[in-house]
Amino acid sequence: MTICGRDLIAKCDSIAKFSESSSDTTRTFLRPAMHQVHDFLGDWMRSLGMQVTIDAAGNLRGLHQTAPASARRLLIGSHLDTVPAAGAFDGVLGVVLGVAIVEALKDIHLPLDIEVIGFSEEEGVRFGVPFLGSLALIRKLDQTLLALSDRQGISVAEAIRQFGLDSNQINGATVHPPTIGYLEFHIEQGPVLEHLNRPLGVVEAIAGQSRYRTEFAGAANHAGTTPMHLRRDALAGAAEWITSVEAQARGIGGLVATVSAAHSEPQAGNVIAGVVRTSLDVRHASDEVRRHAVDEMLQQASQIANRRKLSFKADLSLDQSSVMMDLFLTSLARRACLETGCEAPVMISGAGHDAMIIAQEIPSAMIFLRSPGGLSHCPEESVLSGDVDLALAAGIHFVREFSNH
Amino acid sequence: MTICGRDLIAKCDSIAKFSESSSDTTRTFLRPAMHQVHDFLGDWMRSLGMQVTIDAAGNLRGLHQTAPASARRLLIGSHLDTVPAAGAFDGVLGVVLGVAIVEALKDIHLPLDIEVIGFSEEEGVRFGVPFLGSLALIRKLDQTLLALSDRQGISVAEAIRQFGLDSNQINGATVHPPTIGYLEFHIEQGPVLEHLNRPLGVVEAIAGQSRYRTEFAGAANHAGTTPMHLRRDALAGAAEWITSVEAQARGIGGLVATVSAAHSEPQAGNVIAGVVRTSLDVRHASDEVRRHAVDEMLQQASQIANRRKLSFKADLSLDQSSVMMDLFLTSLARRACLETGCEAPVMISGAGHDAMIIAQEIPSAMIFLRSPGGLSHCPEESVLSGDVDLALAAGIHFVREFSNH
Repeated sequence: MTICGRDLIAKCDSIAKFSESSSDTTRTFLRPAMHQVHDFLGDWMRSLGMQVTIDAAGNLRGLHQTAPASARRLLIGSHLDTVPAAGAFDGVLGVVLGVAIVEALKDIHLPLDIEVIGFSEEEGVRFGVPFLGSLALIRKLDQTLLALSDRQGISVAEAIRQFGLDSNQINGATVHPPTIGYLEFHIEQGPVLEHLNRPLGVVEAIAGQSRYRTEFAGAANHAGTTPMHLRRDALAGAAEWITSVEAQARGIGGLVATVSAAHSEPQAGNVIAGVVRTSLDVRHASDEVRRHAVDEMLQQASQIANRRKLSFKADLSLDQSSVMMDLFLTSLARRACLETGCEAPVMISGAGHDAMIIAQEIPSAMIFLRSPGGLSHCPEESVLSGDVDLALAAGIHFVREFSNH
Repeated sequence: MTICGRDLIAKCDSIAKFSESSSDTTRTFLRPAMHQVHDFLGDWMRSLGMQVTIDAAGNLRGLHQTAPASARRLLIGSHLDTVPAAGAFDGVLGVVLGVAIVEALKDIHLPLDIEVIGFSEEEGVRFGVPFLGSLALIRKLDQTLLALSDRQGISVAEAIRQFGLDSNQINGATVHPPTIGYLEFHIEQGPVLEHLNRPLGVVEAIAGQSRYRTEFAGAANHAGTTPMHLRRDALAGAAEWITSVEAQARGIGGLVATVSAAHSEPQAGNVIAGVVRTSLDVRHASDEVRRHAVDEMLQQASQIANRRKLSFKADLSLDQSSVMMDLFLTSLARRACLETGCEAPVMISGAGHDAMIIAQEIPSAMIFLRSPGGLSHCPEESVLSGDVDLALAAGIHFVREFSNH
């Protein structure tokens, strides 16, 4: 094997230069910079003899066919778009690893075709809705989504047209029928693998999420003239609740609960806070555990508000069920890691990924690479070249084992 | 007595129409609308035979001389400026009551002159520093303050000139030597008198204040991928502290402590708060009690931050000592209230007032009028006409008693 982790990191760094911003890496759905990524990765794919196309959702697809008569196909990939001021590895590394696996296996006859996919959209930055690329694969990039507008008033359908594609062909941008599995490599974007001192992890489920916008409202009185016992202090109420949410989350294994995005009104130090708005984000692999925890947290908030003569409201903004990865592919991924000498812990992904969309139709597996410092969505996002070596080796093992089943 | 509370409320309502804004009452230091107030009140004063002047700090001064040889003088007043979108009574009512007392007593010979003062500036809106009018009376409107700039780059000295006055004469804008006492009526701006069901209260001290800007800083990590035990959540730390500040303040008689003006960064529900900024405002009649409480609150914050691996800093923005009202005048004020049939509770003022400046040079007393709903600094600010009747009667008793001592 000639291609190594360092080469793949160099490719990710090259791709990071394709940006709609001159000062950082910002590459949203079907902006012109995406053409450069397609050219860069397409050239590499073609040099390996792959058939390269861009589907009507703007997904880059490269097919490695080993035998014309082959009926089975493994899909490998991740996304090519980024958040604003992004790092170089979130998404892109999973696509680069897919092509590298093809490069490593291209001269070996396997009873399996490999399709590498670079999804056009996962982060949800341009249109406020994530997963547009992978949704197309399961025929859920529908007319409602195609009609969404970005800040310039351009619709998804129009963005597809401006990129040189035909949104009327969107029904062709689906999973190809011979596909029987999906594998996604992704940086962890969290501190768990680093904390455990492990280079790779295998995802068994992507956590479900509940998100709310909350508001405590009291009375914005004078901070000097209102005695403590006559106050209706929205911030004191919110603070009591935030503390209780944290304590509750700490007591439930695998649960994460985050109150964030806090802002009180008025912004005057000599006036008691009349209104406090926050977000609430709760995630767990079990939808039942999550929904029960959310109910308790909201009940707790109402009790605190009642006792303090405040009002409390919570507006649901997201209730996303957890998604299980395929049991067999997950076992295969663990064994593939083991064969590289790496005991990969089984993990829950707290973040959403394309695999949670594709898994609705195709058996899917995900392998995480350790994120140094837990950092992502920032220019400091990184990955260790030794970890990428191991991921590539595990990917090759995975494909060989999978092709034998 | 012919003038009554209802008349005085009508005068305040008339004055509320003199505004630099067409939609509400906003009257800051020496803006043109202040000329209209001076004309309105000046006409009333002159109709009572008072000598009316505007001093170099823009204070309206009306002198009622009962005997040319009189050497003693009582100063009665409050301020004529307002906050933006103000009510009609904060400040203005104290000046109107002063003139009304003169009207009620004008035909009675008293061995005492009465000077009614309408301070030009108390709220600190235009130049960010309060009490400019009363500071002039104790020779503290100095060159540093005269050089302050408003948002248009106009200095205090220039604002004085534009109003038609001469800032070089500022040394003449002082307390006149025969003055031996100061009496200020003011709405309470808090809920205490209403809660006690009393129309009037007598202030024995104006609380000292400590104000800080605080900041908790942690790490802004992914809300989905960062387990609870690996978080450095700035908002969870701030919330724990806010709860402890409230509990501490509730345990110390007369202390008020307010954490307000909270804002966390980033404002994203799926990112753990990396930084939370708040204000801290602590007030008590005893400077020792206040400073000890503040020390404990800041120590508590540091301990919470250390335990959670956060940083904490607190920047002092104000450390103002408490000011005692004169014991004799305060007793006189209580007795004057009693003679109207009203048992006025002795109170601490949590808000600053002109009396806290004047008291540095002249024995001072303050009488509060009940604030319905505790409301002030808003158009809904009000006062009950029966309470104004009592305040006027108490003021007349006060002046009669005071002139006999």
